[in-house]
Amino acid sequence: MQLLKDRILRDGTVKPGNVLKVDSFLNHKIDVQLLDEIGKEFKRLFADKQITKILTIEASGIAVACATAMHFENVPVVFAKKAQSINLDGESYTTKIESFTHKKVYDVIVSKKYIKPDDKILIIDDFLANGCALLGLIDLVRSAGASVEGIGIVIEKGFQSGGKTIREMGIDLKSLAIVESMDAETGNIVFR
Amino acid sequence: MQLLKDRILRDGTVKPGNVLKVDSFLNHKIDVQLLDEIGKEFKRLFADKQITKILTIEASGIAVACATAMHFENVPVVFAKKAQSINLDGESYTTKIESFTHKKVYDVIVSKKYIKPDDKILIIDDFLANGCALLGLIDLVRSAGASVEGIGIVIEKGFQSGGKTIREMGIDLKSLAIVESMDAETGNIVFR
Repeated sequence: MQLLKDRILRDGTVKPGNVLKVDSFLNHKIDVQLLDEIGKEFKRLFADKQITKILTIEASGIAVACATAMHFENVPVVFAKKAQSINLDGESYTTKIESFTHKKVYDVIVSKKYIKPDDKILIIDDFLANGCALLGLIDLVRSAGASVEGIGIVIEKGFQSGGKTIREMGIDLKSLAIVESMDAETGNIVFR
Repeated sequence: MQLLKDRILRDGTVKPGNVLKVDSFLNHKIDVQLLDEIGKEFKRLFADKQITKILTIEASGIAVACATAMHFENVPVVFAKKAQSINLDGESYTTKIESFTHKKVYDVIVSKKYIKPDDKILIIDDFLANGCALLGLIDLVRSAGASVEGIGIVIEKGFQSGGKTIREMGIDLKSLAIVESMDAETGNIVFR
């Protein structure tokens, strides 16, 4: 998606430790016009799929997932929650996700009421690096007996293993921008 | 907002401890058509204000804030983050918020880059109960020297003190549904 790549080149910054900061338009401050274009593009990419729900994980996945769902017809968003909340009663599907960004392991849960065996799920998230978050979401969907119809990622770090792992599982993974390499010294970003 | 009140009466459930569960359409599974109507209504309610940014707090505020920003012109969303992240470098405004739902105190931060003294902020959140989260967000805005032009809340628990406190501060607080009373025994919900 050229609009996105241009924006990453203009406003993204590379930090030591393979950190690509896009918090000026995607995951702290959010450019909602760009967000809407991202949602439109995911709809175009997955237009041939019969999606019943869009699944994401809090927090920054929520914006992208909602913007995407608005381009589908009657497709709700379900967001997996990090850690137990007293507002989630009844039974939940649970998985563990290790966060690259926060260097810790989260329990991630979805209420059993909101993923059913007949659901056809599109998973949406803002970043894909080592794939831990996605593998956790895939695990939640499969625990429910539902199917993962596709995965839409805004920015994939192509030099980390997550994308390869998930594509080798036979899952239809599409990323709007795949960063092939980046350099914290020069600030250079190369897309695949 | 009648559409919202009808939905609360139909799908909301009252749990002991003054918990109103709306996770089937607002804060776990999200009905994005309703979300879009909520955004449209906030735009209508704050149409006379010159808003430069919409501020919310992760996680469930993000969906409502983005849906609202899409009805404004070139107004980005900024969401305050709970706890320090390595992706937030440089200086941040920080405040502490006590969560009624999770029974703990969070550090909440916003990068100084994303709230400036000339910003005219509309704060958006899904729930207002004792007002701790909102008071924290107001504190962040004022730390930045920016102004709070208004606050839009989806569901206010009118029987808790937050709404009264914030209105007495002279802030233009508008809630789409104010619950006057609710009863976990009967499931009855009465709006103001």
